Amino acid sequence: MTVPRFDLLGVGNAIVDVIAQADDAFLVAQGMHKGTMALIDEARAQAIYDAMGPAVESSGGSAANTIVGAASLGARVAFVGKVKDDELGHAFMHDIRAAQVAYDTPPASDGPSTARCYIVVTPDGERTMNTYLGAAQDLHPADIDEKAVADTAITYLEGYLWDPPHAKEAFVKAAGIAHKAGRRVALTLSDAFCVDRYRDEFVRLIRDKTVDIVFANERELHSLYQTADFDSALEAVRSDASLAVVTRSEKGCVVVQGATTERIEAAPIARVVDATGAGDLFAAGFLVGHSRGKDLRTSARLGALAAAEVIQHVGARPATPLKALAEENGFGV
Amino acid sequence: MTVPRFDLLGVGNAIVDVIAQADDAFLVAQGMHKGTMALIDEARAQAIYDAMGPAVESSGGSAANTIVGAASLGARVAFVGKVKDDELGHAFMHDIRAAQVAYDTPPASDGPSTARCYIVVTPDGERTMNTYLGAAQDLHPADIDEKAVADTAITYLEGYLWDPPHAKEAFVKAAGIAHKAGRRVALTLSDAFCVDRYRDEFVRLIRDKTVDIVFANERELHSLYQTADFDSALEAVRSDASLAVVTRSEKGCVVVQGATTERIEAAPIARVVDATGAGDLFAAGFLVGHSRGKDLRTSARLGALAAAEVIQHVGARPATPLKALAEENGFGV
Repeated sequence: MTVPRFDLLGVGNAIVDVIAQADDAFLVAQGMHKGTMALIDEARAQAIYDAMGPAVESSGGSAANTIVGAASLGARVAFVGKVKDDELGHAFMHDIRAAQVAYDTPPASDGPSTARCYIVVTPDGERTMNTYLGAAQDLHPADIDEKAVADTAITYLEGYLWDPPHAKEAFVKAAGIAHKAGRRVALTLSDAFCVDRYRDEFVRLIRDKTVDIVFANERELHSLYQTADFDSALEAVRSDASLAVVTRSEKGCVVVQGATTERIEAAPIARVVDATGAGDLFAAGFLVGHSRGKDLRTSARLGALAAAEVIQHVGARPATPLKALAEENGFGV
Repeated sequence: MTVPRFDLLGVGNAIVDVIAQADDAFLVAQGMHKGTMALIDEARAQAIYDAMGPAVESSGGSAANTIVGAASLGARVAFVGKVKDDELGHAFMHDIRAAQVAYDTPPASDGPSTARCYIVVTPDGERTMNTYLGAAQDLHPADIDEKAVADTAITYLEGYLWDPPHAKEAFVKAAGIAHKAGRRVALTLSDAFCVDRYRDEFVRLIRDKTVDIVFANERELHSLYQTADFDSALEAVRSDASLAVVTRSEKGCVVVQGATTERIEAAPIARVVDATGAGDLFAAGFLVGHSRGKDLRTSARLGALAAAEVIQHVGARPATPLKALAEENGFGV
């Protein structure tokens, strides 16, 4: 097999984050579930924005954040996701290309505006997300570049793709192309409520090996297997998935692959400013390490390092070049 | 005289900042003068944006930042400035109103888009700005709300208003209304190159008492009096202005009023992350203290505290409520 052109290709919802600080009372008043992602329509988006404090806008999207993080670590990467040809869409396109990501999905010329995620950051650094999918709803299988996917070591797909109507077809198409070319496919479960919406389909994707590598946080894993017991959930995913990476916030992460179990601590940090992007950047570090042939433990430590960077500032994408940070911390990537 | 409805009303260019990190070589390659503001046209704006790394968008504008800072300190404030009825204009309107600022300038329905300032932040925390004025060029005297200005303790005007064609008329109109109502007028010199463009007019505004309070940094003061000697520049402004506040970055500030001279140290900080907004927030703290009857020294120390907050994070507006910060530091405001 030839060396692939890309280390990683991500498929996900192309979203601009609108980030504001608020206290817990705001979440209660707005009926928001702390730490989760809720889908909202345009009217609710406007109501939330009207109620929110001063905000900053920053390109986001789960898989897009992961891909940008991987680029910052020096990986060769590409992204597929749909924006509209509007001001926020232009910002998304600028930011992802400026991060050295190959991005060629044509923007929608009409229909709903570029997707926005209204993110409320509470004083504890936790983020609560409200997503208006907008133009991201228009992602179709035709947007998948077959040649690019076939020429990528690992294609990375977000569970959130199950929300727009045709994106899951794009997901399955991409997975099929990747496997036909002898490449691998990774999936992040995205969010506990997202898992709740699509549990059976996600379990099937993992069991039938449509995906080879699964990323989940503790809550998502519990939701997937409908259990409150971490160890039983871990054994279930060990049995279903070829390789599973489970993140546990400040408790670090657990990687299971067949009989192998690796437990890795979280990287030390001064203070959680904004948890947005923690899981996305963990996946970036892990996948870059893994695609470069590092062992599971080293890959996970690289993930923890990237996650630690992103939670110490506002916004879901790295504020410092991760490759230099990794090298300073003894990772040759 | 009745108690005014507003402590402060700002008139300025309504701008959305587009902020990216870059090294000094980028400034050299782009022919940018570090630490200054350059006016650019739409084509140059596009070229700079294309060359810039991933960015975040955040509402800005010098006087607008000051007014938002004053609101964060608990002052009653208003702002006048022109955006377009587009996505970035909506973000500007949302952010300033969400900060509890009275803002009623009608957006332009056609013409150029909302003003953008492309800000390059270098590793030393210094910011270099490139402003596309766009819709801010359409600020006219008719946009000045006479009743609001007459009902404001201090009307605050930015020197940058000399750049758009009719804004200086709005400036002079606002100053006239304020003085007729027995109120005061403050001016920030904005930028050394801005002073260079309008030196004679700025000196005249100060000498003929169109403005009562002048804010300048060291470079602006040197430019105003065309001297490299700080002490002679200080004596010149002491003689011309009723009250002058000169900021000197990490060297603190000097306030002169007649024979009185107060020298105040900068507030201690861990690291300059992004100097954008330092002068704006200094003015906010000083003016809030001054309008509440604090002495010059206390007002300047409050300015230094607000400036220290804003330079320790990305963006030109406070990330933490300044009133609480001031109270923690022993200021009753």
